[in-house]
Amino acid sequence: MPTTPAPFTAEDYQARMVRAADSAAEAGLAGVLVAPGPDLTYLTGYRPAVTERLTLLVLAAGREPVLVVPTLEAPDAERAPGAAALTLRDWTDGKDPYGVTAPLLDADGHFGISDNAWAMHLLGLQKALPGTSYASLTEALPMLRAVKDATELERLAEAGAAADATYEEILKVRFSGRKETDVAADLAALLKHFGHSQVDFTVVGSGPNGANPHHEAGDRTIEHGDMVVLDFGGLKHGYGSDTSRTVHVGEPGPAERHVHDVVQEAQRAGVEAVKPGAACQEIDRAAREIIEEAGYGDLFIHRTGHGIGVTTHEPPYMIEGEGRPLVPGMCFSVEPGIYLPGRFGVRIEDIVTVTEDGGRRLNTTSREMAIVG
Amino acid sequence: MPTTPAPFTAEDYQARMVRAADSAAEAGLAGVLVAPGPDLTYLTGYRPAVTERLTLLVLAAGREPVLVVPTLEAPDAERAPGAAALTLRDWTDGKDPYGVTAPLLDADGHFGISDNAWAMHLLGLQKALPGTSYASLTEALPMLRAVKDATELERLAEAGAAADATYEEILKVRFSGRKETDVAADLAALLKHFGHSQVDFTVVGSGPNGANPHHEAGDRTIEHGDMVVLDFGGLKHGYGSDTSRTVHVGEPGPAERHVHDVVQEAQRAGVEAVKPGAACQEIDRAAREIIEEAGYGDLFIHRTGHGIGVTTHEPPYMIEGEGRPLVPGMCFSVEPGIYLPGRFGVRIEDIVTVTEDGGRRLNTTSREMAIVG
Repeated sequence: MPTTPAPFTAEDYQARMVRAADSAAEAGLAGVLVAPGPDLTYLTGYRPAVTERLTLLVLAAGREPVLVVPTLEAPDAERAPGAAALTLRDWTDGKDPYGVTAPLLDADGHFGISDNAWAMHLLGLQKALPGTSYASLTEALPMLRAVKDATELERLAEAGAAADATYEEILKVRFSGRKETDVAADLAALLKHFGHSQVDFTVVGSGPNGANPHHEAGDRTIEHGDMVVLDFGGLKHGYGSDTSRTVHVGEPGPAERHVHDVVQEAQRAGVEAVKPGAACQEIDRAAREIIEEAGYGDLFIHRTGHGIGVTTHEPPYMIEGEGRPLVPGMCFSVEPGIYLPGRFGVRIEDIVTVTEDGGRRLNTTSREMAIVG
Repeated sequence: MPTTPAPFTAEDYQARMVRAADSAAEAGLAGVLVAPGPDLTYLTGYRPAVTERLTLLVLAAGREPVLVVPTLEAPDAERAPGAAALTLRDWTDGKDPYGVTAPLLDADGHFGISDNAWAMHLLGLQKALPGTSYASLTEALPMLRAVKDATELERLAEAGAAADATYEEILKVRFSGRKETDVAADLAALLKHFGHSQVDFTVVGSGPNGANPHHEAGDRTIEHGDMVVLDFGGLKHGYGSDTSRTVHVGEPGPAERHVHDVVQEAQRAGVEAVKPGAACQEIDRAAREIIEEAGYGDLFIHRTGHGIGVTTHEPPYMIEGEGRPLVPGMCFSVEPGIYLPGRFGVRIEDIVTVTEDGGRRLNTTSREMAIVG
């Protein structure tokens, strides 16, 4: 049985904070401003509730990290796994939190700020320090969390294995005559059974619903003859899973078989294009080319993949225009799809990690179309 | 038995959008930019997953509302309750979403933007339209959602009644010898039993844990002689509940009794200060004065209250410096507390709505200290 991995230590978090501050300096930033959410989780292990009250980690090369927190949340912050490597600066209801933060920042600095920091807080900083400027971390420091270390890879592999076990089990349940939401509930229960602490999505797109790539699961009763897109994942030990397979209730016809073959081939091509030094957009191109050649280019209406780590959607993105090179340790999805409006959809998705000489799938279940009952 | 209220119609949402756009124009704004979250829920009924992909509702007086959405989420947006009153403008992965949004905005306009819009998106807009400027909706249009209509009040009253029923039931469970998390699980189950679709928080702060106002619930075993702060709420039919009571396991001593009396008196004073035209800060002052006079002023370390509606924390805030007047239909918490580090805490909280001539509590359970087993 897999055991619970050792928790990250204050030293782990400190090393991440130092690396983030150094990368920021190299990128010409005066510092990094980190909001509650995946960046703060990654850098400190602290996961406060996200509210209108400002919590902000300020990192700058050569300076001690400072966490600005509301006074009434300070006791929680002090217990965060990375707190030993931080100085807390608290502010009390009624005080101006931007006034408390301003002295920590260069008044004319250019800062990276978490994508998901609230606009309200960015506007507060811009007002308190009119000489400062900002760029989102995805733009300024996109690879901050992108390259995973060995411990993180272990967790992602374990989350992937749990998602694979979930898929193997879902093939045994009844699809025909049950609602999408019933199968979705099965997927959620299985992910939890296999160790997920959090289920982020359980897409069950049957028949025409499968043609909407972001359909989750609805009241539709699954019927014999349906294609069904399954796309599910969440967090296990703090790291994400995300896999998709498309199954068929009973024997498929030639059209369904053909579209599935094209997606399967495109997904294989995308995975095979993964290697250090390849640009992210090459993964997208490799998969898209197969689909375009088969004449379905207009029906592949999303990017080919996204990074995964402490959250299930993060840089790097496998998308046209993303020229940055792959680096060993990056982990991301490869998930081409074809969506025939009013008819059905097909998507196949694995998480892949970049190795020294290629890519390794963290989802290893069969990509052939499974027949379910 | 309470029945499910009729859902809001496209006309309801349209009226809200018109009112928001008109209020914005009156406030000198060129328009309102609404991100996924409570503002978008309130204005359109649409609740997309919040991701790095831009979804933004653009409202301006005299113009048709436009919802910018990722192409792959457009089918979901089209099914939103308020969609009939909207034009969708979709953008496909790889396109610049800010370039799609820019033509909808005056190039030198001053806009209100949802507090919780992502910094990444605000920065994208600031870059695409350097002549524009922005203010958070809490600053620019703080009362956008603050005044509730009759239908909303009904829902808030029903959520409050469900929270009250939860409190009455939790008094019957065993506290002594059980963990805080066990009682928290009971609270969550009861809220669901009484019709909540979502539980947002279940604070069980026993003994010294009660002295941390944002402690949720931990592994501590509750003991005979403990004070226990209970603070719980969530959403029922889309509207929020939030109530706190402080109970004692067995008979309290004179010190606990005294502190509870002071908080009870402060909370009563806060509620009694509620009337149309009173400034928000007067509610805070009324409650705080009682606590200060009793010598505990330094131990009341948060504001007295916050608004509630489609979310459990929103304007108006009952806090020193908030001079805006109360208006009939506003709903907010009145929740003073005293926190004795290392010993215990006391907090008492009701949701109150402003009536034509005063205030009405939406939580009506006894505010006396209950003795539990």
